[in-house]
Amino acid sequence: MANEFAIIEQYFKAIGDPASGTVLGIGDDAAVVEVPTGQQLVISMDTLIAGIHFPQSTAPADIAYKALAVNLSDLAAMGANPAWFLMSLSLEHDDSQWLTQFAAGLKWVADNYGLQLIGGDTCRGKLAISIQIAGYVPSGRYVTRQGAAVGDIILVSGELGNAALGLAQIEGKLELEPTLLAKSEAALNRPQPRLELVFFLREFASSAIDISDGLVADLRHILDASGCGAVIEKAALPVDVWIERQGLYEYALEAGDDYEICCTLAPGFQAEVERWNSLHPQTRLTPIGKITESGYQLLDGEHSIDLSRRQGYRHFD
Amino acid sequence: MANEFAIIEQYFKAIGDPASGTVLGIGDDAAVVEVPTGQQLVISMDTLIAGIHFPQSTAPADIAYKALAVNLSDLAAMGANPAWFLMSLSLEHDDSQWLTQFAAGLKWVADNYGLQLIGGDTCRGKLAISIQIAGYVPSGRYVTRQGAAVGDIILVSGELGNAALGLAQIEGKLELEPTLLAKSEAALNRPQPRLELVFFLREFASSAIDISDGLVADLRHILDASGCGAVIEKAALPVDVWIERQGLYEYALEAGDDYEICCTLAPGFQAEVERWNSLHPQTRLTPIGKITESGYQLLDGEHSIDLSRRQGYRHFD
Repeated sequence: MANEFAIIEQYFKAIGDPASGTVLGIGDDAAVVEVPTGQQLVISMDTLIAGIHFPQSTAPADIAYKALAVNLSDLAAMGANPAWFLMSLSLEHDDSQWLTQFAAGLKWVADNYGLQLIGGDTCRGKLAISIQIAGYVPSGRYVTRQGAAVGDIILVSGELGNAALGLAQIEGKLELEPTLLAKSEAALNRPQPRLELVFFLREFASSAIDISDGLVADLRHILDASGCGAVIEKAALPVDVWIERQGLYEYALEAGDDYEICCTLAPGFQAEVERWNSLHPQTRLTPIGKITESGYQLLDGEHSIDLSRRQGYRHFD
Repeated sequence: MANEFAIIEQYFKAIGDPASGTVLGIGDDAAVVEVPTGQQLVISMDTLIAGIHFPQSTAPADIAYKALAVNLSDLAAMGANPAWFLMSLSLEHDDSQWLTQFAAGLKWVADNYGLQLIGGDTCRGKLAISIQIAGYVPSGRYVTRQGAAVGDIILVSGELGNAALGLAQIEGKLELEPTLLAKSEAALNRPQPRLELVFFLREFASSAIDISDGLVADLRHILDASGCGAVIEKAALPVDVWIERQGLYEYALEAGDDYEICCTLAPGFQAEVERWNSLHPQTRLTPIGKITESGYQLLDGEHSIDLSRRQGYRHFD
């Protein structure tokens, strides 16, 4: 299997500047990397399959973008800076136009986020992209899901639910007006991995996760790992005004693909959050609730909804 | 995508002893690894797809075994010792019997080769396994395809062609007698990654590759990377006596899936090869030819066959 590099060599060889520490890139049985002194390696692997993780109709460059972006989002949640990746690409046909556009999308993300493609393989099969990504973090400074403490503020970056609106429009479930449609399509196809938050998270967050399966499901991972509960407020959720007016908060709470960061901070860091928000309006952090001893509640005005049994999007349901 | 760990947590969480330097394993957005001082990371990624890389009828434990073994074989060819891996598993159904058997196969290999599963994901789709494997090598001591020099001896480990015989029997192209059938099935389903050769390769080899696409194609990668030619002798090829008697050398030359090591050594190291062979009869190294300035020839008695345009098994042909 190791030698199916023909397509990768032709289309993908020059993707990304040499990452810090890359000793040997694409073209041998394996790549060789020297991890910089004082840094730890943060590693994640995610697969996108056509028809499951993205609609069959998605443009090749968007598929490439998203395959890397969802992996970059994992690094962001861990507080790691991107370094390099490997890709396994499964394709039904050796379609040079498709490959050229796909490679262009990949190159765009790699160049923008300082990532180098150092290896991988291609094979024939239903369209699927597996990416294994690696980043570096100063030793011991990584952020996990474990560490949220009672009284911590829960925050999310950006806006929630827009990617799910975009998907609902493609599936014919909604008819969005043009401006919101454009925003929703961008959120679905071009999610912004929140790497600008890496330093903030390392410095201040007690826990963090990226929101891929919906806020309710992903915040639950923090609660499970940290052994605590949470109360979140519906009115505080950062959503598009259309979601607010229509009352369609399920898009923000239970739909996937946001790739925003959900994190917890000790209450003493409120001033740092305000400073962050004044400097980074695009990646604004919105307080949406608090960590409690136990339970998992959504406050909706006078009502309280029990979230402890609600699930986000899951495969194999 | 990062949170589809349910199946991995249930079936795969305890696979392999903690690898040297694993700081954080399965269960967060990413794993964290501290590479030991003085070591470099050797990384490879290979995907196996049902019906392409293994017959649909293959037993789950054999699929798991092979998915790891082909990746371990890449590490062996680089002179690296196994450390950890990530796996992306695509499955049509959440079949607990299949998963239990698959996990048992994976655990067997991981335990035998000192590998730890530190992350990955599962998703619904046609059966496919992507594995990203990492090993360590003392800094600068990795072996590549580049480095073969004129006059070097070309050697291969073990026997060639047996896995292809096994596949031919499954496909109804051959009828093997029971002893050879058992050996061929083992070669096909349970290829032995030649990790015992790692120290020998680091010490003595000028170049190395693992034979996944057939000797002719894989040795050509060494010639291309090293900028030289080769002459190999048919009569010297290490094959089962049945292949020799039937004259079916194409199984040894052009069929894939051997996962033996092909390497080159300066001629001065012949005594080391003999010592290796006396101590390791199972992983015997057989001299099969020499590196030349240019060309690529197979000597068959009086005849000389030009290999420079022959291809091994390739996807997307």
